[in-house]
Amino acid sequence: MLEMIAFDADDTLWHNEVHYRDTQAQFLHILSPWAKPERVNAVLNEIEMGNLALYGYGVKAFTLSMLETAVKVSGARIEGEAVGQILALGRDMLQQEVTLLPGVEETLNILANDYPLMVITKGDILDQTNKVKRSGLEHYFRRVEVVSDKTPLTYQEVLSKNQIDPARFVMVGNSIRSDVLPVLALGGSAVHIPADTTWEHEMVSDFDDAQDGFYTLNTMKELPELLTRLVSTI
Amino acid sequence: MLEMIAFDADDTLWHNEVHYRDTQAQFLHILSPWAKPERVNAVLNEIEMGNLALYGYGVKAFTLSMLETAVKVSGARIEGEAVGQILALGRDMLQQEVTLLPGVEETLNILANDYPLMVITKGDILDQTNKVKRSGLEHYFRRVEVVSDKTPLTYQEVLSKNQIDPARFVMVGNSIRSDVLPVLALGGSAVHIPADTTWEHEMVSDFDDAQDGFYTLNTMKELPELLTRLVSTI
Repeated sequence: MLEMIAFDADDTLWHNEVHYRDTQAQFLHILSPWAKPERVNAVLNEIEMGNLALYGYGVKAFTLSMLETAVKVSGARIEGEAVGQILALGRDMLQQEVTLLPGVEETLNILANDYPLMVITKGDILDQTNKVKRSGLEHYFRRVEVVSDKTPLTYQEVLSKNQIDPARFVMVGNSIRSDVLPVLALGGSAVHIPADTTWEHEMVSDFDDAQDGFYTLNTMKELPELLTRLVSTI
Repeated sequence: MLEMIAFDADDTLWHNEVHYRDTQAQFLHILSPWAKPERVNAVLNEIEMGNLALYGYGVKAFTLSMLETAVKVSGARIEGEAVGQILALGRDMLQQEVTLLPGVEETLNILANDYPLMVITKGDILDQTNKVKRSGLEHYFRRVEVVSDKTPLTYQEVLSKNQIDPARFVMVGNSIRSDVLPVLALGGSAVHIPADTTWEHEMVSDFDDAQDGFYTLNTMKELPELLTRLVSTI
């Protein structure tokens, strides 16, 4: 028996990283009077990583990091118009249409008959909750949990709060770092479905894919069959 | 029997609004070359309210609204240095020392022996979680729930997730709008402890304080006695 199948949201249920990349391309254009793309990308990445412990994940954090980058690479000569454009990039991301990944809706529709489903995602609580609503998928999920980061501790809190036994818990997501490693550490099962584009920060170079409880699929459509197999072994 | 006593965090457990006011005073100073304080305050308030549905609550939202205000009141002539100063104001708020309100620690210490305690707060998930940790109060609470807004629906979700009967639930906070009205709407009890300074947005002009389940206290220290009385009537 499986007590809960949990899904990551961004780049597992719907496109997300592609919007960050599109936004970053526009940001490079706004900053083109001040610095070459390579330098802007490098500074932005460094600033984002430096802000992670303070800002956390999500669009608001990214927007603030873009603004800090703009001040830095322009030598504080950036002007109000560009600041307004960067703020608008952030606002656009928060209102972006939610585009589901292939097979997501049909798979959830199948699984919801047999298992309790939930979402576990990190980022801005309002933005992530709003995307679940805009996605049209909300009715499939018993719970939507937005966490500040995906660590064994935050998963532990979510599982304990929802009375879920880790041994009967399956997490499905595109990130080895966030959706797989912390869940395996708790004794749960993790299904990795790689996305077309993944944020470098989520990459793990030395992951051992022969671990117990780890599964990898090419597409969400293969999930019902895998879960049926899993149920027979747990 | 009471199943859960929940506390709002900002301006219920620790000072918060005072930091917003201090920050806003510094912001007015940064924008003093461009506009008078009254105009900056009015524009900022309008922009904050306009952004609420998109940004939600919290320091990152406030920082982005300050930046948007700076662009607007300067006629887009604001420069990088001021942008950097405004970003620094936001960073300072996120790292602000947490100063407990009078009687909070001693009261929690008494209550924790007799009741399960939790925090329900709105804002940035990482910032609110970090403040609970920095406050030194974390060990008193079974749960810390950060919600996008405090409405009957979000309270309902928190209560249902934590298997709490609204009739046996008490919320303690400084905001009639966020801590009292939605809880009374669900049939719970609400204890209002007014703060020295309260954000205008949290004010309710036509609140009926004769409602069942509503209590008001001058200070947190009076809470144990009130709860003892409540237990004998529920």
